[in-house]
Amino acid sequence: MIGEYRHARRVNFYETDAAGIVHFSWYPRYMEEAEHALWRSVGLTIHERGGEIGWPRVALAFDYHAPLRFEDEFEAVIRIADIGRTSIRYTCDIVRGGERIASGSMTIVCVERRPGQTVRAVEIPSEVAACFQAAEPA
Amino acid sequence: MIGEYRHARRVNFYETDAAGIVHFSWYPRYMEEAEHALWRSVGLTIHERGGEIGWPRVALAFDYHAPLRFEDEFEAVIRIADIGRTSIRYTCDIVRGGERIASGSMTIVCVERRPGQTVRAVEIPSEVAACFQAAEPA
Amino acid sequence: MIGEYRHARRVNFYETDAAGIVHFSWYPRYMEEAEHALWRSVGLTIHERGGEIGWPRVALAFDYHAPLRFEDEFEAVIRIADIGRTSIRYTCDIVRGGERIASGSMTIVCVERRPGQTVRAVEIPSEVAACFQAAEPA
Amino acid sequence: MIGEYRHARRVNFYETDAAGIVHFSWYPRYMEEAEHALWRSVGLTIHERGGEIGWPRVALAFDYHAPLRFEDEFEAVIRIADIGRTSIRYTCDIVRGGERIASGSMTIVCVERRPGQTVRAVEIPSEVAACFQAAEPA
Repeated sequence: MIGEYRHARRVNFYETDAAGIVHFSWYPRYMEEAEHALWRSVGLTIHERGGEIGWPRVALAFDYHAPLRFEDEFEAVIRIADIGRTSIRYTCDIVRGGERIASGSMTIVCVERRPGQTVRAVEIPSEVAACFQAAEPA
Repeated sequence: MIGEYRHARRVNFYETDAAGIVHFSWYPRYMEEAEHALWRSVGLTIHERGGEIGWPRVALAFDYHAPLRFEDEFEAVIRIADIGRTSIRYTCDIVRGGERIASGSMTIVCVERRPGQTVRAVEIPSEVAACFQAAEPA
Repeated sequence: MIGEYRHARRVNFYETDAAGIVHFSWYPRYMEEAEHALWRSVGLTIHERGGEIGWPRVALAFDYHAPLRFEDEFEAVIRIADIGRTSIRYTCDIVRGGERIASGSMTIVCVERRPGQTVRAVEIPSEVAACFQAAEPA
Repeated sequence: MIGEYRHARRVNFYETDAAGIVHFSWYPRYMEEAEHALWRSVGLTIHERGGEIGWPRVALAFDYHAPLRFEDEFEAVIRIADIGRTSIRYTCDIVRGGERIASGSMTIVCVERRPGQTVRAVEIPSEVAACFQAAEPA
């Protein structure tokens, strides 16, 4: 069982904006990259082609403490804060060297998609729940 | 003085993801587009080329209620929730037809950038403060 | 029948990069936006939810003559250069005021997607072909 | 001296579109990521903060042979095709396993940016030119 993953990353040029820093809309993407790497690290994928289960995001938050710039190396450290019956809540720190650049959170819900039917929340599959546990807060 | 702006928009194909819906990282961009349109509506620009004043984002939040899909028409309705001495807080609803798709908030800070000096928060210029007022909550 | 469409647009902040100009990867997106607006203008959509027909891009080219900056207003002028049995070739000019900022081209192919089968090129549906004609070169 | 670099990469979820494949606008970004990694591999950066030299892109082309999907692992293989007095031309293959997914090219020009002056092409700095040589075609 796993509760935390450290995703190493470098800032790409197309992630910067005319203020010379990473545009704030990239941080949710960094968090999601870390989430998917966390899932892969236990042999899971969050998006199965043609699968009936999906994981839409229902809540997102970020606080920005310092900027990232082109070619900066950083880590997106994702932690499982809580696993419920149908949802998972993560927290995430964006860290460069010893400095916390930003801190975020995200909640995802497990849903069933069937053609012609409304999407509805369903219980997290047991083979997924078996892989994850809440992490110690940082 | 203005406190609200309704920015009309249509979903572009490149904003969708393999789940067939708009990727959640686009909503902060929709909110920012509405913010910049709000500023333009009173003759201001939020990013002056070579200017010494900048407006980095320090906090972001979004709750997602329903998905948007390719070619959906929607409005990003931005409201000034609060203007302080050095910061502005917005709230934003993403609305399609009568349906609230998502609701967010964002805080920006007025900073001074001088080459070789640390960025520091400064008082909002009076010509900017003179244009904006807190809006009635929706 | 239509062969040209002028799509008006303004540069968003998140489309700029640390060099202070629109990142070159946005021009193909501007061209695609214009393409989809061209299709909508004759009552068509290029991506039907759950449809069996798709239009992948097989070739792209752009020449960049001058930069675009934040809040610049421009037009993406798309023209049908050629319609074949299974493919459409477009050309596109990005124009600001009277100035040609960039010029591009793109070829798309009509394909059939069936679950579990290989994607293969098919004849353009007659109701689509009936709407389009090659435009006069600019 | 170096003329080729193989940049390993995995497809992120936000790079896919509603057709379930990587949106074609990402391939120029993959090529640029490989270019910057090529530069870093010889101790150079293509964008110096506050520097007077810039490298805008003046030409781009891509041919798309097969799609990439979420979590696919691939390489962006960039090669210097030609170095002139003021410009560099690259070619790039996007390769997954043994399969060539796409092939592109890009030309960049060395320019001088001085505040209040027009951007103009200048000779490639000798310390840059000394690092690169044209690669053997693939």
